[in-house]
Amino acid sequence: MILPKVPRLSNEQAAELSAVVAEFGCKLQPIVGAVRTIYAIVGDERDELMINRIEGLDYVERVDRIQSPHKLMDRRSDLASHRIKVGGVTLGERLLVIAGQCTIDPKNPNFFYETAAAVKEAGADVIRGGVWKPRTNPYTFQGDAKSLDILMEGARRTGLPVDAEVMDETHLRLALDAGVPMLQVGARNALNYSLLRAIGAAVAGRNTVVLLKRGLHMGPLNEFISAAEYIVSFGNPNVLLCPRGTSPALDGYRNHPDESITPLLKEKTWAPVVVDPSHSVGKASYVPACALAAVAYGADGLCIESHVAPAKGIGDDPKQALTPDVLKTTITQARQLWAMRRG
Amino acid sequence: MILPKVPRLSNEQAAELSAVVAEFGCKLQPIVGAVRTIYAIVGDERDELMINRIEGLDYVERVDRIQSPHKLMDRRSDLASHRIKVGGVTLGERLLVIAGQCTIDPKNPNFFYETAAAVKEAGADVIRGGVWKPRTNPYTFQGDAKSLDILMEGARRTGLPVDAEVMDETHLRLALDAGVPMLQVGARNALNYSLLRAIGAAVAGRNTVVLLKRGLHMGPLNEFISAAEYIVSFGNPNVLLCPRGTSPALDGYRNHPDESITPLLKEKTWAPVVVDPSHSVGKASYVPACALAAVAYGADGLCIESHVAPAKGIGDDPKQALTPDVLKTTITQARQLWAMRRG
Amino acid sequence: MILPKVPRLSNEQAAELSAVVAEFGCKLQPIVGAVRTIYAIVGDERDELMINRIEGLDYVERVDRIQSPHKLMDRRSDLASHRIKVGGVTLGERLLVIAGQCTIDPKNPNFFYETAAAVKEAGADVIRGGVWKPRTNPYTFQGDAKSLDILMEGARRTGLPVDAEVMDETHLRLALDAGVPMLQVGARNALNYSLLRAIGAAVAGRNTVVLLKRGLHMGPLNEFISAAEYIVSFGNPNVLLCPRGTSPALDGYRNHPDESITPLLKEKTWAPVVVDPSHSVGKASYVPACALAAVAYGADGLCIESHVAPAKGIGDDPKQALTPDVLKTTITQARQLWAMRRG
Amino acid sequence: MILPKVPRLSNEQAAELSAVVAEFGCKLQPIVGAVRTIYAIVGDERDELMINRIEGLDYVERVDRIQSPHKLMDRRSDLASHRIKVGGVTLGERLLVIAGQCTIDPKNPNFFYETAAAVKEAGADVIRGGVWKPRTNPYTFQGDAKSLDILMEGARRTGLPVDAEVMDETHLRLALDAGVPMLQVGARNALNYSLLRAIGAAVAGRNTVVLLKRGLHMGPLNEFISAAEYIVSFGNPNVLLCPRGTSPALDGYRNHPDESITPLLKEKTWAPVVVDPSHSVGKASYVPACALAAVAYGADGLCIESHVAPAKGIGDDPKQALTPDVLKTTITQARQLWAMRRG
Repeated sequence: MILPKVPRLSNEQAAELSAVVAEFGCKLQPIVGAVRTIYAIVGDERDELMINRIEGLDYVERVDRIQSPHKLMDRRSDLASHRIKVGGVTLGERLLVIAGQCTIDPKNPNFFYETAAAVKEAGADVIRGGVWKPRTNPYTFQGDAKSLDILMEGARRTGLPVDAEVMDETHLRLALDAGVPMLQVGARNALNYSLLRAIGAAVAGRNTVVLLKRGLHMGPLNEFISAAEYIVSFGNPNVLLCPRGTSPALDGYRNHPDESITPLLKEKTWAPVVVDPSHSVGKASYVPACALAAVAYGADGLCIESHVAPAKGIGDDPKQALTPDVLKTTITQARQLWAMRRG
Repeated sequence: MILPKVPRLSNEQAAELSAVVAEFGCKLQPIVGAVRTIYAIVGDERDELMINRIEGLDYVERVDRIQSPHKLMDRRSDLASHRIKVGGVTLGERLLVIAGQCTIDPKNPNFFYETAAAVKEAGADVIRGGVWKPRTNPYTFQGDAKSLDILMEGARRTGLPVDAEVMDETHLRLALDAGVPMLQVGARNALNYSLLRAIGAAVAGRNTVVLLKRGLHMGPLNEFISAAEYIVSFGNPNVLLCPRGTSPALDGYRNHPDESITPLLKEKTWAPVVVDPSHSVGKASYVPACALAAVAYGADGLCIESHVAPAKGIGDDPKQALTPDVLKTTITQARQLWAMRRG
Repeated sequence: MILPKVPRLSNEQAAELSAVVAEFGCKLQPIVGAVRTIYAIVGDERDELMINRIEGLDYVERVDRIQSPHKLMDRRSDLASHRIKVGGVTLGERLLVIAGQCTIDPKNPNFFYETAAAVKEAGADVIRGGVWKPRTNPYTFQGDAKSLDILMEGARRTGLPVDAEVMDETHLRLALDAGVPMLQVGARNALNYSLLRAIGAAVAGRNTVVLLKRGLHMGPLNEFISAAEYIVSFGNPNVLLCPRGTSPALDGYRNHPDESITPLLKEKTWAPVVVDPSHSVGKASYVPACALAAVAYGADGLCIESHVAPAKGIGDDPKQALTPDVLKTTITQARQLWAMRRG
Repeated sequence: MILPKVPRLSNEQAAELSAVVAEFGCKLQPIVGAVRTIYAIVGDERDELMINRIEGLDYVERVDRIQSPHKLMDRRSDLASHRIKVGGVTLGERLLVIAGQCTIDPKNPNFFYETAAAVKEAGADVIRGGVWKPRTNPYTFQGDAKSLDILMEGARRTGLPVDAEVMDETHLRLALDAGVPMLQVGARNALNYSLLRAIGAAVAGRNTVVLLKRGLHMGPLNEFISAAEYIVSFGNPNVLLCPRGTSPALDGYRNHPDESITPLLKEKTWAPVVVDPSHSVGKASYVPACALAAVAYGADGLCIESHVAPAKGIGDDPKQALTPDVLKTTITQARQLWAMRRG
């Protein structure tokens, strides 16, 4: 829908506008109102280049899009009936819980094995373990490929699938070679389209699941869903959308919690939403409340950091990891709330 | 704690700084570090004028406050043991539910009477009814003092206390004369200190309860608590803090939901937190989720818009009012979640 | 423009929608597209109640407004040719500079007289002097009506008009009785519609100018312009729009500078824009840059805090007041830039 | 500076805290105040892991850092005297202007050659030309490696250095092999630490300059500077910091303009600041004002999109590219303002 700055376009302007949309296979339909004429675009309005061309005309105020920009991620696409399975859970049928350490300590693998066993006992479906770790400060420990073996050993010992973040194509190849069944894209790479394409290509034809974290800003949700479209366009539709807090932070938290976008995402896309309360609030004492709030908003899953001895953890664990007993209570309450919401 | 821009102050600078804090009855204590000396303020650091004076010195980088600015609202004040009662509920012992119309329609009082009866039946403790109404557009209906009689008649018929927003001293006097037991300060007046002082003075020595909505911006929480301090400083401590969403809105909601500040408020103040999910999301279908999220975050109460026939309501009711049956389910689930969180 | 959730409305839905808009004197015009039918509202779409009613229908996704909500403030209104004059300046013909103290110190009136003389000498057109002062902390000095005499004495001595903030109807009456020619509405009262109406009524039929500060949040600009419409609707069109920074602050400033909204305001309204760089950044050393940026964005005026001895000022002056010599350089550069921009 | 939640730590708590900081080579120094004891960290407080460990203790309220986290980027580092040269300009001595197309059209190379000649004539020092292009929509044209030859041909014809964005290691290798002297990291990759490290390693020992765009969120500035530290830590200090607008957008712009962070960056780091007004506002008619505002705030350079025939451009050019004549006026005025600011 094209809104001109003037009440009516001149014949010349209308002809120019028609020519632009015609280049993209569309037609223009004027809608004559009492005080103003506006113009509908008949055809596929999704090409950004066409929108840019139209908005570049000096007599055009703006273009309001009325069509979803997402071919595959849209909730009305054929993929809407696809069900994603991981860790024995079919998303949408039971609350998925991913839990484990922020960062595996390669010098202390037992912490990870004990944590993996404890979070399984607490009710987790997938074990989280950070192998590589983005860090604001370049001189801080950034993870170690050796932890990949520890991660996979944790998988063998518990019999549960594991999840690890990949930050580049080298990580991606190593993780897939090792057999990691769930890959995570971190918030800082949420719009790294080269990585998203590489992942999409690499997981096509596999059962791998991708947990895509939301970027750090409070901008439009379509951008988040389009990032998933990058991956899915290669053929593997197993993408989980993961709100994890935005920046700037709420005065007292690590980030600005954003579980409240869950219903808005679900209006636009069929993809399951798995919320990360740990990074949203950034402090263990606040995490259970945030986890329940996510379920209240309709989240299909949770991704929670936990550690058998948080104070001895590396990475974010000393601040934000739950002990396994707090995790267990949180999972129990979250599943009760989930059941209550389902009726 | 004063952080200078330089590693160490010169004797002259230190003397000047000492003189400034001495004017406000404080002393300076240097803390000699390895690379830098910083200066503690010994005494009452709460006077903004002293902070401004210090931060105005060109060799001072910033002042980090380590003392709560709130004498009465601070959770360590003597008021922390005060319990607020309204509508048969002692705050903190049971989830308080305020429900009713956004705006009373003075031409159709029966809608309000029917709504009042229905929300009571659904489990509400206090009846909400807008008499006067702030409106972005000056030409839109702004409420009518005649609705005050309708509001009080609703109170008589249901036997429940009622809540109405006051926007100025005229409203305040009329509402108190009519016997309105709960006054609401709207988001647009959240920092209207003249009104806050007038309310504080007027409710001193009464049992009146004040529901103070949070302002529209995402700024520091101390500002919100300080607004309550304005009221409480006159002697009546019955203030409820009400997050109701901030601006700019999340892409799809009326505002940016902010129930997640509840635990942060509770770290700073003893005051109960009553969340308004209706304005936070601005659309009836999203309200129940937001209400439950508020309880998940530890809210002591909810303020929900409801109407027996939303489509026939005026004000915001057509968009955001729950029907009484949806309200009932929401209250039931909210109280179950409240009990789960406590138990 | 009404966008339904479904490709086409049923006959029943279309009839219901028609009935709603008919209640507000409008008609519905379907626009049949290739994949979807949308509906134009023919008539005056500005009534919020109608929009609320339509958006409350469960088959409606959203309403996109295509009409300006502002009858008088719109740049296409008849008022667009009105020119506001103050302090010898016709807005739009020369850069207006308002300068002076944040808060007059009633115990040291000479500071104000000296500052008034100095800012006049530096090139200011209007003298600013705070009589009453909103303060986050209720126990901080809030101004004193006695300063009103000092303010007016400053006006007499310099021969320049003066500007003072009013926070309630008592201030308004006192200020007008004293003959204050420019009234300021502070950011915290920017959406205090009772005060805006009281001011509008009080200045109708006078030459008084109102400097309306923008509220503290980053929300929609129409809300800011609508606040001005409240005042102007009573008959006096002398309103200046004043961006002054929003909250949350940029990491290092007092607020988030917002002079960049100037061109956006000018696309919507004819009202002059006078930027306050002092509150935007909150520190004297940053103010000149922010002032020039405002002129770069097309501001019609500046409102700058200045004091002959900032360190001895009360209120915000120790941090953010410019000394008269820095003010003079800033005004000179700002006027040079203004001239360069005009060509 | 460690602020506990309690007025004084118990002996046990103090011992635990001492042990934690000792693990990182630091010591604890108590600062006994009138109402509260706080604890200074003596030693290098920059390790995030130590901060996380401390903040994870349940009796700790928060840690206020008093040390810059940046070894090399800090304005007090030895690098502060380094001068970056590009396109015949020594940064800080003359306003650097980078200008050219958002995206080179590989089917119409002449547009680029004509644009390159025209922006040189208008006064630009470096030619911008997008070879690869991040796009929200995966189905939109994403650039083409063939354009690299066109870019370098433009360099040869004009004799000016060229600038192109690289999104991954493949682009990086191709661009360096082709001899591109200025590499750009886009906003979406601003925190892609793998890419930053790869670039840092690849440009070490070369004269290559890296233009690092700010990420899309409004979060802390240290994060932006730390991203530059990633690159510089490999040995090449030629990094330019580029604010380009944040998200969510101001109501009417493409982004939220952020040139106002320039003075704040300069308080923390020695690195030059080059502002991109084109992406900040996203519409050609607003770009000149934003460019001047950047210079007002002290920017060392500008990065502006320009095209000889914007309407025929691909990418963002139809909306935001300046024509060469408007570019010329903008550069002229920007350099005049720059000179005025320098005195």
